[in-house]
Amino acid sequence: MSDPQAPRLLRALAGETLERPPVWFMRQAGRYLPEYWELRAKAGDFVSLAMNPEMAAEVTLQPMRRFPFDAAIVFADILLIPHALGQKLWFEAGEGPRLGPLPAVAALADQVEASTERLAPIAETLARVRAELEPERALIGFAGGPWTVATYMIEGRGSKREAARAFAYAHPDELDALLDVLVEATARYLVMQARAGAQALKIFESWCENLAEDVFERIVVRPHAAIVEKVRAAGVTAPFIGFPRGAGALVEGYAEAAPVEAVALDTQASAALGRRLQAQGKTIQGALDNLLLREGGPAMDARVAQLLAQWGDGPYIFNLGHGVLPDTPIEHIARVVERVTGNRVKAAA
Amino acid sequence: MSDPQAPRLLRALAGETLERPPVWFMRQAGRYLPEYWELRAKAGDFVSLAMNPEMAAEVTLQPMRRFPFDAAIVFADILLIPHALGQKLWFEAGEGPRLGPLPAVAALADQVEASTERLAPIAETLARVRAELEPERALIGFAGGPWTVATYMIEGRGSKREAARAFAYAHPDELDALLDVLVEATARYLVMQARAGAQALKIFESWCENLAEDVFERIVVRPHAAIVEKVRAAGVTAPFIGFPRGAGALVEGYAEAAPVEAVALDTQASAALGRRLQAQGKTIQGALDNLLLREGGPAMDARVAQLLAQWGDGPYIFNLGHGVLPDTPIEHIARVVERVTGNRVKAAA
Repeated sequence: MSDPQAPRLLRALAGETLERPPVWFMRQAGRYLPEYWELRAKAGDFVSLAMNPEMAAEVTLQPMRRFPFDAAIVFADILLIPHALGQKLWFEAGEGPRLGPLPAVAALADQVEASTERLAPIAETLARVRAELEPERALIGFAGGPWTVATYMIEGRGSKREAARAFAYAHPDELDALLDVLVEATARYLVMQARAGAQALKIFESWCENLAEDVFERIVVRPHAAIVEKVRAAGVTAPFIGFPRGAGALVEGYAEAAPVEAVALDTQASAALGRRLQAQGKTIQGALDNLLLREGGPAMDARVAQLLAQWGDGPYIFNLGHGVLPDTPIEHIARVVERVTGNRVKAAA
Repeated sequence: MSDPQAPRLLRALAGETLERPPVWFMRQAGRYLPEYWELRAKAGDFVSLAMNPEMAAEVTLQPMRRFPFDAAIVFADILLIPHALGQKLWFEAGEGPRLGPLPAVAALADQVEASTERLAPIAETLARVRAELEPERALIGFAGGPWTVATYMIEGRGSKREAARAFAYAHPDELDALLDVLVEATARYLVMQARAGAQALKIFESWCENLAEDVFERIVVRPHAAIVEKVRAAGVTAPFIGFPRGAGALVEGYAEAAPVEAVALDTQASAALGRRLQAQGKTIQGALDNLLLREGGPAMDARVAQLLAQWGDGPYIFNLGHGVLPDTPIEHIARVVERVTGNRVKAAA
């Protein structure tokens, strides 16, 4: 049994079933909030904002002032690791990330230690947020899953990942070497985040669609397990949330093989799958459709009630199945948080 | 036990475990074959080719001459139904299908009976193929799943389906009415195909990614069940293969609720999921990665052996997890068919 004084999120991550689940939302900080855009205009580009601890801490805290979320997640980006490893990164307005040519794996490997130092501003953001956040609200650090980060590094942008998936077959040794570098850099980065104040660590593996089971085990499960082991070996005990988005039925094998405390489920997860994971001793998180959050109305209320009913009697963290969409009405978020927490939420600032 | 004289595919669909599984490939007729392009050049556009029984029969038979596939699948397209219902359809070279504005649902409903008559050329294609094909090789008819067809009808083209998924929340009654029209038109079309010579019927539901479980049940499972019931009510006994591509863990609920004889699994299906379906009495089909078929080599051989080992001791049909890619080497297909059938295959014409 976990410490009854611990933040609700950490109690759920310790396997406790609470009288009501903790709630937070992926991308709860960001583009749907007018105060985010005010700050963003001052910061200039996205990378500058993420690497500015004062501003990134403010962005992290903005949704915490509006909503009684049980956890904050540090404002950062999964592509800061390739950036810190020396692959050029920028964001095209309205189009998303762009990366420069993929450096040789040996050159990337040489930068692993330096990459963690270059990411020190994220640690400072975490320290600032932890100092300001109420003790009953947890702080989450995160990194991208190595495969997902590698898809961007290989393709240079977001895409259908066909080229990266083909690369996994055509150049398996090169991909494995790249994943090894990312595992090492990611583990160091997460250790730094935990030491700076992150109380839980999430791995966002956003692109598991269309992976065959044997490939998934090699390029997703194994690297996640290696990251957790390395972080544990450094003495960090913060619980892990693994998020193999789009892994479908492969989530079960992931949950068995990856030593994460919790598995975040995507929009498509079945009630039965979630219950099987709970029965296996995993805490689960998810999985309201972000499109339904944007749409709102009685269908949203009904689905929230359904999720609470189907998973609420096991260790469960209420969340979306994917991130908040930029055009999501703030009142819809307030309404869902209200229905999960049972507390009246005043939405508008 | 099924008739030992029946085509291998039909024996597997009747639930029989064979000494080696039948094999055919999605998109086995088409763009990777030089003889396809020769014929296509004569036919003009894709729709003209699909609606020309003589040419479509020839395209259907082309791969049957090259490879000892156990089944042919009629050369047609899932978007011929909206075309026949009166929504304009054309193909942009290198970009895929385009559809005109979505007609009112009432207008579409008025065209259901006429749509089946307009699709009579597909029945003639089936009759021609059945007359030419050896009796031990089965002939498969097909249609798109109503939801997948609806996504094209709503969005006017292939896409990430965000607009169609949002439509499912914003206009549930309109979507249900559209799906009802498609169920009726699809059932009639499949009855016609079976009467013309199709011995098995496949429903291609190509876009199940990101659907929440309650939505999936409403817009995929229910319509599939309705199609099968309507086809059965017309006295057609041909077995059904349901293909909810991208449905992940929701495939299990699909297999329980949709009265199809077989479930086609996509690239991502886990070994355990397939075995659970077999234990539930379903024949399964799948699921070699089409990217691995294109890549070839020892990894392809190893994966073929793995699939045969993991699923071969239950009712199983060897296939891909998605269609053959246009730039797939013909020798790779020959090699896989050879390894599944145990017979030497001469690849080049």
